[in-house]
Amino acid sequence: MEAGMKALVLEEKNKLNLRDFSVSETMGPSDVKIAIKACGICGSDVHYYTNGRIGDFVVESPMILGHEASGVVLETGADVKNVRAGDRVCMEPGIPDFTSGETLRGMYNLDPAVRFWATPPIHGCLRETVVHPASFCFTLPDNVSFHEGALVEPLAIGFYAAKKARVSPGDTALVIGAGTIGIVTALAAGAAGCSKVYIADIKKGKLDFINQHYSGAIQTINLNETSIQSFFSKNKITGVDLVFEASGSIKAYDGICDYLVPGGRMILVGMPSAPAPLDVVAMQVKEISVETIFRYANIYPLAINTIASGKLNVKPLVTKCFPFDRSLEAFEYAAAMPERDVKIMIDLD
Amino acid sequence: MEAGMKALVLEEKNKLNLRDFSVSETMGPSDVKIAIKACGICGSDVHYYTNGRIGDFVVESPMILGHEASGVVLETGADVKNVRAGDRVCMEPGIPDFTSGETLRGMYNLDPAVRFWATPPIHGCLRETVVHPASFCFTLPDNVSFHEGALVEPLAIGFYAAKKARVSPGDTALVIGAGTIGIVTALAAGAAGCSKVYIADIKKGKLDFINQHYSGAIQTINLNETSIQSFFSKNKITGVDLVFEASGSIKAYDGICDYLVPGGRMILVGMPSAPAPLDVVAMQVKEISVETIFRYANIYPLAINTIASGKLNVKPLVTKCFPFDRSLEAFEYAAAMPERDVKIMIDLD
Amino acid sequence: MEAGMKALVLEEKNKLNLRDFSVSETMGPSDVKIAIKACGICGSDVHYYTNGRIGDFVVESPMILGHEASGVVLETGADVKNVRAGDRVCMEPGIPDFTSGETLRGMYNLDPAVRFWATPPIHGCLRETVVHPASFCFTLPDNVSFHEGALVEPLAIGFYAAKKARVSPGDTALVIGAGTIGIVTALAAGAAGCSKVYIADIKKGKLDFINQHYSGAIQTINLNETSIQSFFSKNKITGVDLVFEASGSIKAYDGICDYLVPGGRMILVGMPSAPAPLDVVAMQVKEISVETIFRYANIYPLAINTIASGKLNVKPLVTKCFPFDRSLEAFEYAAAMPERDVKIMIDLD
Amino acid sequence: MEAGMKALVLEEKNKLNLRDFSVSETMGPSDVKIAIKACGICGSDVHYYTNGRIGDFVVESPMILGHEASGVVLETGADVKNVRAGDRVCMEPGIPDFTSGETLRGMYNLDPAVRFWATPPIHGCLRETVVHPASFCFTLPDNVSFHEGALVEPLAIGFYAAKKARVSPGDTALVIGAGTIGIVTALAAGAAGCSKVYIADIKKGKLDFINQHYSGAIQTINLNETSIQSFFSKNKITGVDLVFEASGSIKAYDGICDYLVPGGRMILVGMPSAPAPLDVVAMQVKEISVETIFRYANIYPLAINTIASGKLNVKPLVTKCFPFDRSLEAFEYAAAMPERDVKIMIDLD
Repeated sequence: MEAGMKALVLEEKNKLNLRDFSVSETMGPSDVKIAIKACGICGSDVHYYTNGRIGDFVVESPMILGHEASGVVLETGADVKNVRAGDRVCMEPGIPDFTSGETLRGMYNLDPAVRFWATPPIHGCLRETVVHPASFCFTLPDNVSFHEGALVEPLAIGFYAAKKARVSPGDTALVIGAGTIGIVTALAAGAAGCSKVYIADIKKGKLDFINQHYSGAIQTINLNETSIQSFFSKNKITGVDLVFEASGSIKAYDGICDYLVPGGRMILVGMPSAPAPLDVVAMQVKEISVETIFRYANIYPLAINTIASGKLNVKPLVTKCFPFDRSLEAFEYAAAMPERDVKIMIDLD
Repeated sequence: MEAGMKALVLEEKNKLNLRDFSVSETMGPSDVKIAIKACGICGSDVHYYTNGRIGDFVVESPMILGHEASGVVLETGADVKNVRAGDRVCMEPGIPDFTSGETLRGMYNLDPAVRFWATPPIHGCLRETVVHPASFCFTLPDNVSFHEGALVEPLAIGFYAAKKARVSPGDTALVIGAGTIGIVTALAAGAAGCSKVYIADIKKGKLDFINQHYSGAIQTINLNETSIQSFFSKNKITGVDLVFEASGSIKAYDGICDYLVPGGRMILVGMPSAPAPLDVVAMQVKEISVETIFRYANIYPLAINTIASGKLNVKPLVTKCFPFDRSLEAFEYAAAMPERDVKIMIDLD
Repeated sequence: MEAGMKALVLEEKNKLNLRDFSVSETMGPSDVKIAIKACGICGSDVHYYTNGRIGDFVVESPMILGHEASGVVLETGADVKNVRAGDRVCMEPGIPDFTSGETLRGMYNLDPAVRFWATPPIHGCLRETVVHPASFCFTLPDNVSFHEGALVEPLAIGFYAAKKARVSPGDTALVIGAGTIGIVTALAAGAAGCSKVYIADIKKGKLDFINQHYSGAIQTINLNETSIQSFFSKNKITGVDLVFEASGSIKAYDGICDYLVPGGRMILVGMPSAPAPLDVVAMQVKEISVETIFRYANIYPLAINTIASGKLNVKPLVTKCFPFDRSLEAFEYAAAMPERDVKIMIDLD
Repeated sequence: MEAGMKALVLEEKNKLNLRDFSVSETMGPSDVKIAIKACGICGSDVHYYTNGRIGDFVVESPMILGHEASGVVLETGADVKNVRAGDRVCMEPGIPDFTSGETLRGMYNLDPAVRFWATPPIHGCLRETVVHPASFCFTLPDNVSFHEGALVEPLAIGFYAAKKARVSPGDTALVIGAGTIGIVTALAAGAAGCSKVYIADIKKGKLDFINQHYSGAIQTINLNETSIQSFFSKNKITGVDLVFEASGSIKAYDGICDYLVPGGRMILVGMPSAPAPLDVVAMQVKEISVETIFRYANIYPLAINTIASGKLNVKPLVTKCFPFDRSLEAFEYAAAMPERDVKIMIDLD
């Protein structure tokens, strides 16, 4: 089935059009059709726009951008039970081969066959409607807005990191890197039971944002003024239970074991561009373990429930909104985003 | 060394005296001496008072009551490093054989040799001073009061239950039983990352207390008005991830698997007086697992950090205070405690 | 597609026919067609034969029996990559909804929509050919026979129990019940690293079988001659790390905590017909945890690898074979199976 | 108490004497005195002999060598219950502060206060008798020899690695490095349930030893003839579940993620002399996790039970024995140990 609709199309590197586009989509018995209502702009969207590629993923033909979305169910396949037409939903953007070994083992995010929105050659969801498997659509409670629904995608990364961290209630955590992912990881670590969450970065704008909106939940460390080591020793912190590396910087690995208590754990969220030097002996004397994450799996309901509970206020994360017809402007803004912005949201309809 | 001091002594069943008492205590190089400042009254204290025994533990000679205490360090042994004279501390009341197999495996609470305050024949801490191993004394941050310090003991049970539950952030939980232990378990489950915590009981006074002080964190189910099953189906709850059984009632086990989602977990906190009938097949079709707890181990720092962080306000739990010299009155009150009371606290000095 | 073939059909309770049967099967792009070579008779097959039902599962129309099978791939769908025509395979018999929440969480065995061979109204595999999802077909190494391939199904239960037990190398285990499931559980516990595996039963024939074939791996406890308690105290066994309940008898729960060390674990494999009385306080003082299993998930490759490695010799388990055309005789034999028999195998072709 | 006895004393670097030596030892109520019967020579013993130091641990005054020992209990303190005079035992050589936080959390091996035999300035056990905490003495079953008892120490490292690997039965493993630690790790991985264990090294003598004695349990990869990558692709191994790094070589980390399946785990046993470059993104796309170990904790009973069970034959590991009075010769031999030797044992008495 060819569906013609308005869509934000990356024609090629640096060339973005909001135009009519025909998407070939078949709606199966387990699928639903959704009218998109809100879609956040991710760093990867911007990167495809400005670079035309991310690693081996190259934009070789016009591709619709966007993967952080919420919307309203228009239509459901015959076998669909979890949602109904009219339901407000958000959607998990990476669809695996449901019969793969990885899926059957509960790690569908690791299936090499995953088709992920706005990862070439798969179209994203910055368009009027999208067809999606019902099992990757999640109802939003009444008190969760479309913006919050769209935020579930980036938040899911933080939640997944926090889940893999196996937080014991009262644990303390350090997040290295205060970009969007660092912030959602810090928020998730707090929501997961950490009694104290520190976040360290050199970007003052990001730290100011955190201090303004999340001072009760997260304590900032300004790396322009102090090192983590100095901050810890000045504040008599002998170590944290968990370190989340969310900067993707090689330098973050320097002395990273020193921040941890014996039996501590590192969760590697950031993706460094080169091998990271790990002091194995320093890890061994404290028996530090390491978890890594790739996107997320089975996280959406947990994140939605937590937003709905009021325990985690993600609204401040949306620092700027644009209507769909000003999408190009939104991407220009996002490409030169001020430090104090976190998430740019596009509203459809 | 014989230390004479004022102490609350259970002479025998139903006979309590506040009087001078000589306690034989040796202070070793790893011990500290503490001036007690606050001590909560536990159900077990009341039970020894009114029954003279709990199971096989029989009060056969005068015994000082009390095990939920905080105080100030007066003196430290030569090898003590973690606390100093003048430090405000709370104390973990069960001292194991430090060289036992259970201790070495990290489960010192299961060591049969544990000497627990106010469990015959071990004296409790409702007295002026006590000598205690430094490793079982924990410094209270400035923003944690003596009352809160004394509350760490009952709270530790809830925290331990929540830790053993291995909460994933966003999980949902049901606590059966809204006594003191049920309440601290529900609070700990929330602090551990549960997005929703239900608590069910027949005691309206307890539920009122929770609704008044913790309505944001805990949702009550009044079992006089509805069954859990009905409440769930009315509220479209298909199941929770975790059930904490904190009532100790055999009846609580009836249909308990129905409250859980596939892969759910039961944590048994309450101590029923007879074997509980468990529907094994109902457990199997959902692969429900069960954890049990006995007191707690390695929990005090986690609980103290969480109180200090402001994420968990335990202050409302202290519903009534008595000065030390009115201890007998305090026990009379506790023995006939109104439903809306939770914790009776005795202030020393 | 209607496929006519010879099949062992349970027409109704007590009425079995080996006859031509038309099976309606569609072969999709992810499916394979397999020629069945061997199929074991399970207690459930016999039970449907003699009772016409198991619990709520009632044989209401003619149904092909059998679910423990191996065979040769005849044909593969367009998308199949893991097997090729001519491959020798064994098949996992329970097919979930691949897009269900349970499947996505890695617990596809708990999906209520599972279609399991020879569970009404789903046909089994005692027939010439079967169409099956490729992801539930597993290649047999050259040194694994069709008989061993068919044995993977019951063995998978034992393996799954052992996996869920989270055996530490050197742990000790007690298996209660020496039926087929008890035996495969004991073998799996040994293969999973247990240094000592005890198995207890009253059936002398079963114990004789074990003593004859597996005396090095499993030590038998004859409950006609001694209780487990007496056996343990006589042999100075203070407790085992793991108890696998595989008898399905309520009586097995009597004093079951006494067999375990502090921190020990119970794995409930047997399905008792009534609620089992569990001594919660006895569990708590040792912090015993409980795992339950329902069939298995993600186990076939592990079990096949272990058989192929030579670490686990399952061949003795096949105590009697029948050719396909003597299937009725095989079922008669199985229905009155002598204690010393374990698995009756039917050879096709 | 000063005990004079014959001991193997490292006077200083390169200067070893078998001579009378006075050891100052106090026997407390929880201690036992043991007559040493066998003691293995560890690489660290040889290293102190030839270098006078290992990292920050410097031999500054005469020190008795040896920490892999077994013996006979001569005398027990008043509180000792687990062993009796006359018992054959082996001893865990690292004594923590029993009241430390690490000990109470079950990770006594990480306590900075650990006093470890033959780690300056703590004396080792190559002497006639030694006083040791009873809780670190483990009875040897009748079928476990003194040699096997002494081998428990190095074996414990492999067992601990295998325990931390959380092996599922049937998992496959690769051990990098076939030194003594690599060999015991490979043996422990097999004993822990791995269906297939590969070991890779360049030292042909080590691989020959393994092929001769453990060909059924471990498959060797000769890195002079092939890379691991080539070996895997030639043998159609798409990946193993577990990689144990036991070489301590930085080069081992090159491409290490390629050996693992999605969800695989690395256990770092070897101690590289510089930071190891870890390809974080390669880890993330497979969500590879990392465990590290420092010596071992709570492993002796597990290892002893496994040896006693006959599941693990460690006897071939002792490739050369010397009587105590030829200890100097033993160390000369060990310092220039041929590749095909694994463990040099010294017999006392």
